[in-house]
Amino acid sequence: MTRRIGILTGGGDCPGLNAVIRAVAKSLMRQCGAEVVGIEDGFAGLMEASPRVRPLAWEAVSGILMRGGTILGTSNRANPLQDEATTARVLRHAQALQLEGLVVIGGDGTMALAHGLAQRGLRVVGVPKTIDNDIPGCERSFGFDTAVATVTEAIERLQTTAESHGRVMIVETMGRWAGWIALEAGLAGAADVILLPEIAFDVEAVAAVCRARAQRRRHTLVCIGEGARPAGGEPAVQAVHADRPEPLRLGGVAHVLAAALQPRVPVEVRATVLGHVQRGGSPTPFDRVLATQYGNEAAQLVMAGAWGRMVTLQQGRLSSVALADAAHGNRQVPLDHPLLRAARQIGVSLGEPAAG
Amino acid sequence: MTRRIGILTGGGDCPGLNAVIRAVAKSLMRQCGAEVVGIEDGFAGLMEASPRVRPLAWEAVSGILMRGGTILGTSNRANPLQDEATTARVLRHAQALQLEGLVVIGGDGTMALAHGLAQRGLRVVGVPKTIDNDIPGCERSFGFDTAVATVTEAIERLQTTAESHGRVMIVETMGRWAGWIALEAGLAGAADVILLPEIAFDVEAVAAVCRARAQRRRHTLVCIGEGARPAGGEPAVQAVHADRPEPLRLGGVAHVLAAALQPRVPVEVRATVLGHVQRGGSPTPFDRVLATQYGNEAAQLVMAGAWGRMVTLQQGRLSSVALADAAHGNRQVPLDHPLLRAARQIGVSLGEPAAG
Amino acid sequence: MTRRIGILTGGGDCPGLNAVIRAVAKSLMRQCGAEVVGIEDGFAGLMEASPRVRPLAWEAVSGILMRGGTILGTSNRANPLQDEATTARVLRHAQALQLEGLVVIGGDGTMALAHGLAQRGLRVVGVPKTIDNDIPGCERSFGFDTAVATVTEAIERLQTTAESHGRVMIVETMGRWAGWIALEAGLAGAADVILLPEIAFDVEAVAAVCRARAQRRRHTLVCIGEGARPAGGEPAVQAVHADRPEPLRLGGVAHVLAAALQPRVPVEVRATVLGHVQRGGSPTPFDRVLATQYGNEAAQLVMAGAWGRMVTLQQGRLSSVALADAAHGNRQVPLDHPLLRAARQIGVSLGEPAAG
Amino acid sequence: MTRRIGILTGGGDCPGLNAVIRAVAKSLMRQCGAEVVGIEDGFAGLMEASPRVRPLAWEAVSGILMRGGTILGTSNRANPLQDEATTARVLRHAQALQLEGLVVIGGDGTMALAHGLAQRGLRVVGVPKTIDNDIPGCERSFGFDTAVATVTEAIERLQTTAESHGRVMIVETMGRWAGWIALEAGLAGAADVILLPEIAFDVEAVAAVCRARAQRRRHTLVCIGEGARPAGGEPAVQAVHADRPEPLRLGGVAHVLAAALQPRVPVEVRATVLGHVQRGGSPTPFDRVLATQYGNEAAQLVMAGAWGRMVTLQQGRLSSVALADAAHGNRQVPLDHPLLRAARQIGVSLGEPAAG
Repeated sequence: MTRRIGILTGGGDCPGLNAVIRAVAKSLMRQCGAEVVGIEDGFAGLMEASPRVRPLAWEAVSGILMRGGTILGTSNRANPLQDEATTARVLRHAQALQLEGLVVIGGDGTMALAHGLAQRGLRVVGVPKTIDNDIPGCERSFGFDTAVATVTEAIERLQTTAESHGRVMIVETMGRWAGWIALEAGLAGAADVILLPEIAFDVEAVAAVCRARAQRRRHTLVCIGEGARPAGGEPAVQAVHADRPEPLRLGGVAHVLAAALQPRVPVEVRATVLGHVQRGGSPTPFDRVLATQYGNEAAQLVMAGAWGRMVTLQQGRLSSVALADAAHGNRQVPLDHPLLRAARQIGVSLGEPAAG
Repeated sequence: MTRRIGILTGGGDCPGLNAVIRAVAKSLMRQCGAEVVGIEDGFAGLMEASPRVRPLAWEAVSGILMRGGTILGTSNRANPLQDEATTARVLRHAQALQLEGLVVIGGDGTMALAHGLAQRGLRVVGVPKTIDNDIPGCERSFGFDTAVATVTEAIERLQTTAESHGRVMIVETMGRWAGWIALEAGLAGAADVILLPEIAFDVEAVAAVCRARAQRRRHTLVCIGEGARPAGGEPAVQAVHADRPEPLRLGGVAHVLAAALQPRVPVEVRATVLGHVQRGGSPTPFDRVLATQYGNEAAQLVMAGAWGRMVTLQQGRLSSVALADAAHGNRQVPLDHPLLRAARQIGVSLGEPAAG
Repeated sequence: MTRRIGILTGGGDCPGLNAVIRAVAKSLMRQCGAEVVGIEDGFAGLMEASPRVRPLAWEAVSGILMRGGTILGTSNRANPLQDEATTARVLRHAQALQLEGLVVIGGDGTMALAHGLAQRGLRVVGVPKTIDNDIPGCERSFGFDTAVATVTEAIERLQTTAESHGRVMIVETMGRWAGWIALEAGLAGAADVILLPEIAFDVEAVAAVCRARAQRRRHTLVCIGEGARPAGGEPAVQAVHADRPEPLRLGGVAHVLAAALQPRVPVEVRATVLGHVQRGGSPTPFDRVLATQYGNEAAQLVMAGAWGRMVTLQQGRLSSVALADAAHGNRQVPLDHPLLRAARQIGVSLGEPAAG
Repeated sequence: MTRRIGILTGGGDCPGLNAVIRAVAKSLMRQCGAEVVGIEDGFAGLMEASPRVRPLAWEAVSGILMRGGTILGTSNRANPLQDEATTARVLRHAQALQLEGLVVIGGDGTMALAHGLAQRGLRVVGVPKTIDNDIPGCERSFGFDTAVATVTEAIERLQTTAESHGRVMIVETMGRWAGWIALEAGLAGAADVILLPEIAFDVEAVAAVCRARAQRRRHTLVCIGEGARPAGGEPAVQAVHADRPEPLRLGGVAHVLAAALQPRVPVEVRATVLGHVQRGGSPTPFDRVLATQYGNEAAQLVMAGAWGRMVTLQQGRLSSVALADAAHGNRQVPLDHPLLRAARQIGVSLGEPAAG
């Protein structure tokens, strides 16, 4: 009998999702003649009264390697464990669709839901996804390289305009819990100051860098992760926006920092929040190759019947861990990471107060 | 005796400024053995007690064609006509530097200042500059193509993330007075809705497009120029920000539109303000060639002693107009422009109310 | 009764073809509810025993704006006028398909075929296409900007490697009859020498530039159009390859020039033939907008019943000429073109012998 | 007393060299106040009668992170061990320049020379460099990611033109001894066939893929590393070119394969040799970060006095090996590498004969 495997993508989109879908589907079709079924809009496609699915023939997954986003759609909020009836419906749909198992591609939250369903009997293989590169136990996630490239390009553009005007230019990147994007893009874009969630920054230390550079008629480029916060400070953005409704909670920490810096420096301060562009676009060649490997590895797990496991990358090699053992939380930049040393030694400020 | 010519760049920076500087300087050096002197930070370099200038040797302007921004620096606010003493100092410095004349590269405001100085006896040739492409009587200004390319790339990225989530995604471009960037980048990025300063938009018409697309499970991409405004509405952004100090006037019309749309559509609405990245970066090949032509044409005017004139592009050819006759204000998109017809005919909404 | 219009693309592919197809089809569908039919592989799709066609619904032409090539396929050699039987079959198929008329997108050769069919009674509107930008009477063709961008990027890469090794680096571009690509990409890529079909070059003059630069420890970048030839020389490439079968006629004029230069200069000479990459890839934003305009204009001609005409661009405006009057041959770079003056004045050698 | 350290780059250029130079120099200046001296054109700068060197101040290495090539210049052939007199001169120069030690950035050959000099008493730290990613014991070298990105982009362009014409398109990449570039770029560019030096290919197997695709009216993209060879075949390119002088040994294995395929397939076959563009251009953000780490690690070795060692990357971490122990030869793609499995499973042909 032909095997039938489902695929879904959950959580925020990420460059490389289509490359994973393609590699999973093609590998399963070619290696064991499986039928592959795409679930639409993440778990939402299984939660509704009638499931929203589509067969994924070879042609349907050809030509999608380079496309950003996910051809299956995704959802941020669908929770198949929200109540007993919903969970039952999801399991019933999976059975009615005659799915032998389900490949679930998603972030921390999606993996937790997949694990919950696995405990209820669904056969699941997980593929971790985040542009933030902060999955515990996973060295490098697909999508991160693309996000870094997008941010770096933006920083390069901002460098030339900042230089022409002798300004302090602040650019805010994604990375609520971990500073990988800000760190790597900041280094690649030759930022003068890099501020991360992992290292509380000192506004006066940042201002001192800007002033010293302004004195030499040099502009300053500050790259700040959205989760960075001033030493001793409360989460700054919330404070600023406490009085306004959601769609007017405009901007972020970059603007808050700009407001704090402006009175301390003798030049103009400007801020740019990169926002959603960081999630989109065609994956870099690096991410296409990496995502293809993740997808192909997931297919091996399916073919081996290794249900309940999640693909991971450790010491440069793909392997897997039990969904049950997958660590939660966020993998932050370790304070002894060689990139932090390199940054400091080449003269990049991390916003730390000058040594007494 | 060796001729000495000065060059300065004024106003906001723009991709292609260095290409103009290079073409002016190399042409003058090679054709008539002139010495070329760069003035730093626009008119500011001539306004201070001692002028800030630097000789521009052949090597100094080699290798800058591809660089964004201006190697000379620029200033937004320096006004050499601010008072009699300043004007006199500027003229005195020009004389002391033995400048035969000055090539001034800048926008509307800078040209007005150049004209004022010309009336006081300074020999000036002007080169118009704007990324907004809105100089009256000038068909296409350098820097515009690069800005359109940058915005288009951003729209492409936003398309994939919007598509994955089925969202309404709003992207705000530069263009305070004219919608050229929003129009061309919107068309090139396959936006579904394009909103321009030239055509007051109807929020409900935009919402109707979003709803119709959402019903077919399609996302909607809205490209809005920063100067666009709702029909009958006051300038929306100011209203929103009236209560806050400058550095916290976060975001712009995109966020205002997002707030207005959200209650009218059944899907998530998100906004991105591209900001300063639109000014920066290496000029496109098109802009490098165009800027080289502008610079070379300015050199012809200098060599011909055609002082008091500004380079312009009309009907596909470079020519010049008297600075005195250079029209002021902004060249908007004419309402009968073929691109507007093309947009409507291929199904792009311009935010106009559906015909009754 | 619903109108039915066919579209086909003929000759070599070109970035922007899909943008034209999309604009023609969407404009006709939306403005007059026409059915649009795509003919496959150029005229070949109408020449075979049963025509190969496909309906082009709105969805079929959505999302293709950014794609290089042509979704309809093309053919270089199909000649519907090759014999009476073939011509009759093509006309019969057009009738059987109930095509009110046909939009033909192609180069010089394709337009001649379209004109021949028009004389036999087929209702045709033409859209000119060439990456070489050499259509007589047409100022700027879509695809050219993309080709220039691709070549410029390649030159930029070659600059850094040439610089590191102090080499003479020769890069060969497309442009058999006209030097537009070599000229604009050479200028945009800061080539030191630009050789065009329009100006026979002097090998010794080129060598002199290389030697003078080598003495200052500078590399030399030579950009040569494939149709360029040495003064007094026969077409060099054919001579070199006269003894070999087609697939081994490797390389081109760049290699011939390299062989001629190497004995005359004290540094290594290397050659790169860019080849087919120049035709491919996603069109630049400029070309997307331009191609959209060409397509929309063709749709106006169809809607106006202006059969037998070809869209053209003159003095910055789209208009049309009678297919019968469309000039043949190739639009070369005029010897008094301002870009040639600019090139010479900024120190770019055009391979002309040094003035006596 | 101030420490003085020299830096040189040897062998073919590679994206990221400037990033290494910058990180070495800035780290040494900032951490131990060292003076850093750049040697020009690799070992050549120490071999000549008077050494060609230049001080590398902080400003001299600022702004070079994004630049391709090497600001120091390089040489392919300079051999400081060529004879006793030369070796003695190099050592004498190093002493006269008061160099405490030398950071040598280069490939296999350059490292062997560095080791030879180390045995003669020169204090050396090595940084391995290759765009081919084939250094034994080094998992990922800087420059490789950029080369893969360049090749992938070219493949993408070739895909659209091949598709439009239904052609077989062959693209030849660098990689004389190892197929990493062809493999990763082929996967990232969605090549249908990937041919590597590690797996002798069967022309008929490749032809069979092309024919099967042509039958479904699909084009075929073949990505071939320059070192790939047919099963049982002699090195094909040499045979073809045996009769011609060096500068006319045009093209490479791609053309040879094209000639062999053309009679076996019913569609046009075309070949493109990418050549020198693969070495050039600005490094990708990934390579900028990686090269910065290599350079910073080399500086740690210098500061620790760990002379005679070479930086390396193993299991995702930077460390070092003794120059004496640095394995020579080339790191090929292991036949059990997961990427080869992935390629086969997603339907990419590696030119292997179909299983009997």
